[in-house]
Amino acid sequence: MSLIVHKYGGTSMGSIERIQNVARRVAKWHAAGHQVVVVPSAMSGETNRLLGLAKELSPNPDGRELDMLAATGEQASSALLAMALQAQGVSARSYTGWQVPVRTDSAYTKARIRSIEDARIRADLDAGRVVIVTGFQGIDEQGHITTLGRGGSDTSAVAVAAALKAQECLIFTDVDGVYTTDPRVVPEARRMRVMSFEEMLEMASLGSKVLQIRAVEFAGKYRVPVRVLSSLTDPLIPLDEEMTSGTLITFEEDQKMESAVVSGIAFSRDEAKMTLLAVPDTPGVAYSILGPVAAANIDIDMIVQNQSVRGTTDFSFTVNRNDHHRTLELLKNQVAPSVGAQEVVADGEVCKVSIVGIGMRSHVGVASLMFRTLSEEGINIQMISTSEIKTSVVINDKYMELAVRALHKAFGLDQEASAIDEASA
Amino acid sequence: MSLIVHKYGGTSMGSIERIQNVARRVAKWHAAGHQVVVVPSAMSGETNRLLGLAKELSPNPDGRELDMLAATGEQASSALLAMALQAQGVSARSYTGWQVPVRTDSAYTKARIRSIEDARIRADLDAGRVVIVTGFQGIDEQGHITTLGRGGSDTSAVAVAAALKAQECLIFTDVDGVYTTDPRVVPEARRMRVMSFEEMLEMASLGSKVLQIRAVEFAGKYRVPVRVLSSLTDPLIPLDEEMTSGTLITFEEDQKMESAVVSGIAFSRDEAKMTLLAVPDTPGVAYSILGPVAAANIDIDMIVQNQSVRGTTDFSFTVNRNDHHRTLELLKNQVAPSVGAQEVVADGEVCKVSIVGIGMRSHVGVASLMFRTLSEEGINIQMISTSEIKTSVVINDKYMELAVRALHKAFGLDQEASAIDEASA
Repeated sequence: MSLIVHKYGGTSMGSIERIQNVARRVAKWHAAGHQVVVVPSAMSGETNRLLGLAKELSPNPDGRELDMLAATGEQASSALLAMALQAQGVSARSYTGWQVPVRTDSAYTKARIRSIEDARIRADLDAGRVVIVTGFQGIDEQGHITTLGRGGSDTSAVAVAAALKAQECLIFTDVDGVYTTDPRVVPEARRMRVMSFEEMLEMASLGSKVLQIRAVEFAGKYRVPVRVLSSLTDPLIPLDEEMTSGTLITFEEDQKMESAVVSGIAFSRDEAKMTLLAVPDTPGVAYSILGPVAAANIDIDMIVQNQSVRGTTDFSFTVNRNDHHRTLELLKNQVAPSVGAQEVVADGEVCKVSIVGIGMRSHVGVASLMFRTLSEEGINIQMISTSEIKTSVVINDKYMELAVRALHKAFGLDQEASAIDEASA
Repeated sequence: MSLIVHKYGGTSMGSIERIQNVARRVAKWHAAGHQVVVVPSAMSGETNRLLGLAKELSPNPDGRELDMLAATGEQASSALLAMALQAQGVSARSYTGWQVPVRTDSAYTKARIRSIEDARIRADLDAGRVVIVTGFQGIDEQGHITTLGRGGSDTSAVAVAAALKAQECLIFTDVDGVYTTDPRVVPEARRMRVMSFEEMLEMASLGSKVLQIRAVEFAGKYRVPVRVLSSLTDPLIPLDEEMTSGTLITFEEDQKMESAVVSGIAFSRDEAKMTLLAVPDTPGVAYSILGPVAAANIDIDMIVQNQSVRGTTDFSFTVNRNDHHRTLELLKNQVAPSVGAQEVVADGEVCKVSIVGIGMRSHVGVASLMFRTLSEEGINIQMISTSEIKTSVVINDKYMELAVRALHKAFGLDQEASAIDEASA
């Protein structure tokens, strides 16, 4: 018998029938003798409906009241799931964030979890109940309701698993695991059966959207084994089959991962590139450029500063494509004059492609194989950024699919490997 | 400057535009220097939507989880109202029942308020904020969410007003006050400007539906002046006009009420009459009859037991018409054999008409004028029940409108009187 946390997304909770299916799946685990804590999202569409009402009232609603409003979505879905379990003869009880309590800071709409009490949940588990804890929300020191921001239910689930020292946190979603790359782009993409926490961190931040980046960070900090798996299977599939399905994100590096130098190819089209040409290269210039951008609440992704030539340098960075025009205005009207840049150029037709793999740490020549592959396809690289287990390039976005397919093949990701399953997509 | 509690029903909160109108009205009171606490219901339709989802999951859902679910409706509408006020430049903050806290017993779906803390609300009022408190809900000793049952927001508002010793509790609704009788039946019906708590209690329990009976009881217990008034007027009507509109329910009997012997005519068609004929009149027979009925959760309204003749008596009572057949079965199969009644007869085509007035206490002949009036219209009286300020009769329901109109005229309710306004219906 072990303690398992299940997390179900909004799509899995999207209708009465789906909630009943979630209940069937949870009941199966409970019947097998496991202690189960379930963290559901709001029914799909509900959070958007609520926030839409708020937007009708105010272009910039108060964060505290937004959280008060949005938190109702998970409270409702949690109560419904408890009823669905009870209707199937399973003793169950739902708790809001404040009832557990899940304590957070007071950063409304994007609060961070500080602590989770386990006494109340444990008492119910020991009494044989399935415990349902609302995702996405908590309570601050002053007793106000907070929410963790979009996708916060993943973080809630992992945090609850950490607090309870759960054996595993199962993230049920509408994909059946993490793939070497997006199967819609590369049909040969394969599901990874195991991947390292660090790889997942890079994959998540690069937009694979399978798992919230903050949830992955939380899992890393508290070493919570997380499994991403499908909620679209028959809820009554055999337990031992389900227990080994999906993708396990692990902290034990021995798990046959050494063989794969590169584990996956991530990519994102939501990019725009900004370049300031011939900036006088004085100390503090990077801050002078990026400070005003950050102050305008524009997220900066990759940053590249070239070697200084004759006292000036070219300074490039990428932002989300939605911020393209706003950033350009800011650079032209405010930043360029103040730092003395000669010109500002922007390109909204770029994408970022990254190779990710924990094996890169100990293998030389990985980046150069990437560059050679792109070169052979005639793809010009505009920016390069590297980390210990990732190399990212910015290229013209019309080449994105081509680049991803070529890299997927070049690194042998379409070949059978022990830690990778065949794509079922 | 005084402390005023406003309560708005689901219809008043039914859309973004209506919430904005509520905010305008509240802002007007706030701008005039009043401290305002607002208790809103859920947006109309929302509670039914949520309970509908629950019914899809289970024919008999768990009360605790039902309350967890239903309480989200008021939480959402309260947050929206706070946003609407803020968008109009008014500082506002919303609180759930558990945040105040509103403490209740653990009778889920029909909990009773035990106490309300005022510290948090007062601190916000003193800081110049409008405070919004979710209606309909509270928290029990174990920290579970409870709801007060249908119409519970009225009770919440009066209870909050009592806890804060508010000067007045304004119940904004879709009618502009309490009428001498239903204007749809008697076009000459007049709005009462003032009525006594006791009269309101009788009117509410008789189905005038303007105000929850439990709210009236609460108002009586804590002597909270309650005003029922319209939320359909222009939200910016002058404050002094609004302050004297509607119907004030008062505890001060001097308020010009002596002139009106009968204040109003209440009626209800939701009645079914049950009679056991020739019941052997032994001690405890009433309990033997009504005990099993109450045990089957059937609400009993009027009860009449005739003088015993030759050792047997006829025993009649009324129940809600929905319970007609269930009650009849119970009486025939279980009660009649056990008490030795000769026969059971039931009539589902009856109605109850009542005259209500605090002046009846000190005036003789009121009941006899009622009986004479009905007799002159050829209406047969089937049952009579009286209290200090009310006389009710059960008659054939085809005569209901005729009886109400005749009584309204006989007691002079269509005449100008100081405490009664002309009908605006």
